[in-house]
Amino acid sequence: MKIAVLNIGNELLNGTTNNTNLVAIGQELVKLGIPPILQIAINDTKEDIQNVLKFIENQNIDVIICSGGLGSTTDDITAETFADYFKLTLYTNENVIEHIKNIIGSNKTLSFYNKKQAIVPEGATILTNKNGTAPGIRFFASNKTIFLLPGPTSELKPMLIEKVIPHVNSLCKNKIFFESVYTAGIAESEIQRIVTENIPESNDLYVAYRTEPGCCEISFSSPFHKLVLNSANKLKAILGTAVLKDGCKNVVEDVLLRLKEQKLSLGTAESCTGGMISLKITDIPGASAVFKGSVIAYSNEIKERLLNVKKLTLEKYGTVSAECALEMAEGCCSTLDTTASIAVTGIAGPSGGIPEKPVGLVFIAVKIKDKTAVISYNIKGDRTRIRTIASIHYALNELRKLLITF
Amino acid sequence: MKIAVLNIGNELLNGTTNNTNLVAIGQELVKLGIPPILQIAINDTKEDIQNVLKFIENQNIDVIICSGGLGSTTDDITAETFADYFKLTLYTNENVIEHIKNIIGSNKTLSFYNKKQAIVPEGATILTNKNGTAPGIRFFASNKTIFLLPGPTSELKPMLIEKVIPHVNSLCKNKIFFESVYTAGIAESEIQRIVTENIPESNDLYVAYRTEPGCCEISFSSPFHKLVLNSANKLKAILGTAVLKDGCKNVVEDVLLRLKEQKLSLGTAESCTGGMISLKITDIPGASAVFKGSVIAYSNEIKERLLNVKKLTLEKYGTVSAECALEMAEGCCSTLDTTASIAVTGIAGPSGGIPEKPVGLVFIAVKIKDKTAVISYNIKGDRTRIRTIASIHYALNELRKLLITF
Repeated sequence: MKIAVLNIGNELLNGTTNNTNLVAIGQELVKLGIPPILQIAINDTKEDIQNVLKFIENQNIDVIICSGGLGSTTDDITAETFADYFKLTLYTNENVIEHIKNIIGSNKTLSFYNKKQAIVPEGATILTNKNGTAPGIRFFASNKTIFLLPGPTSELKPMLIEKVIPHVNSLCKNKIFFESVYTAGIAESEIQRIVTENIPESNDLYVAYRTEPGCCEISFSSPFHKLVLNSANKLKAILGTAVLKDGCKNVVEDVLLRLKEQKLSLGTAESCTGGMISLKITDIPGASAVFKGSVIAYSNEIKERLLNVKKLTLEKYGTVSAECALEMAEGCCSTLDTTASIAVTGIAGPSGGIPEKPVGLVFIAVKIKDKTAVISYNIKGDRTRIRTIASIHYALNELRKLLITF
Repeated sequence: MKIAVLNIGNELLNGTTNNTNLVAIGQELVKLGIPPILQIAINDTKEDIQNVLKFIENQNIDVIICSGGLGSTTDDITAETFADYFKLTLYTNENVIEHIKNIIGSNKTLSFYNKKQAIVPEGATILTNKNGTAPGIRFFASNKTIFLLPGPTSELKPMLIEKVIPHVNSLCKNKIFFESVYTAGIAESEIQRIVTENIPESNDLYVAYRTEPGCCEISFSSPFHKLVLNSANKLKAILGTAVLKDGCKNVVEDVLLRLKEQKLSLGTAESCTGGMISLKITDIPGASAVFKGSVIAYSNEIKERLLNVKKLTLEKYGTVSAECALEMAEGCCSTLDTTASIAVTGIAGPSGGIPEKPVGLVFIAVKIKDKTAVISYNIKGDRTRIRTIASIHYALNELRKLLITF
């Protein structure tokens, strides 16, 4: 099956908006083993859209997933332009009218512009938009299944997962099953090696990888359900504790769940990471159940005064040292009155490095009650990468490792 | 002039990589008043690339900016595929060989794969890559100027700004001049209104807007240098203190510069923002000159113990109140021993809201020596948006406003 993605909207071409819809669509389709083979972004212009449709017609595409141009303003012309191209009649769908009323508040009279969003091609299937007024539209024309989805990713993504992916799956010769394994603290290349040696890809089994800071997701997909389950379980068995707890999709969720289960409370003491660990933890609603707060000690003065780091330690070993990191972790638990802590001190660059302590050198200390661990890493890359990898890939995972053995 | 962007690489289609190259290209071209009219992403497959080139040939495109597929591995085939399509002869460029040796360390012998990157079309202009081995390539064929640029944005972006944009500008009938105005604390829609009323677009003057948290950039472009300068200066005069200090491109840089000039030191006390203000400040290398650190007080206990918020205040007014925010700002200055502070407390959601204090309600207090200010905002959107807008758009700008009047 060949799938093309069409993103409509000037904002994609003039640098205003990142095409996060393409990322979402790609991530979901790759799990079915059928990533799109083509993606095109164009302006909301009838001629441009129809030109592109003509081109796609010649590429033996089976499915077009289109986003954008379903808004209420007059510059949004996707539905009418597709209808015109595929010679479909348009009509006002009363269910969509009701939905729009519900979304904007049913007491209000719908404007001409709102009503425009309910005009859809005859015979099309309406995909309800939980987060907005623009309906998704699915129809079959010119031997292709075509999805028109709203532009905002917050509206597109639930529709994609709940309505588009299952339908695309049903169009496959064989229904595709998929299962993901989520890991932390292990490089994607290492996982690839393990998978290649133990659970090799075949005509029946497709493997996809996706890495973000704090998680690597390995997706197995196949028309054979049992093969998918067995493959995922086999990988889980091999990777052991590198696999995140059930239901967790990144290291932060895993750490928070373990802290909760083990009735621990957490604080962070951050120097070079400047609050990134704290921010990632508080990204998760409900983090306050275990997370009490942080001391961001960007100056030595704060490290001494709020985290009880000894002047002698700073003088003898320096701010960027295992000794300082350990004292920060100790001080964090006592100052914030928590049973667990994460402390980070390092050189994020671009300046500040010396031969013995280069840019990217980071010390991480973690503490749970009377147990502590400290480790150093040399992280390559720019300031943003060093801080991100130190915070999420390393520091949170160090605490996770200590939680597992605690 | 019509410009198309072609992004080559499987990683764009399978959801692994965000197309940040398109954003960079769009942002720079829109300043010339000529955003791309078309963007296509495809896999590293000869047939796919040539299919797309055929399509582009029919669209009267003057310039193709292509990214990706210039790497050293065998799956990277952009240069040879373009040369084949446009019937150009390939040769090994010795200057590129020297450059590659410099980048990877001149003592090493170049592998077959590295040498492959020096094979370029005859007659092409080489664009030096400061940050990698893959050279940029510019050539003219089939009545089009074609740029082949490396895939990593860190390599593409400097080449784009230094080599591509000036050349594209030189191709315009008239050379385009441009000038940007950077602002904070004022909505893009309000700026658009002001610009439309006072410095309207014309055939000679193009205006572009780009908004990110903490900054709105307004770019004027025109073949007439004086018109561009006058327009920017006129807008600066109208917007007054909403315009950032010279050389600053977002509110954080502006605040840090003002603190330095006014010999002040800064700390933050954050509840719902969880460290985002601290993180944004420490994104800037050298922030330690004025920034001492933060207390992330995610629990009331920390607010009381480390920020001296009174139990009575929490009981009487609640954690999310002007009174609590003010005491947090006061406590921050005394605990961290700084002359300035920012404090934020609010409800980031998705739960925790009540009718009188809904999700999105945020109180911000700022303090410089004996002067304080406190203000509340109702921010719409999800948890991420509420925390981002509270931190960058509002909190940092409140301190900026106090710094201006201090």
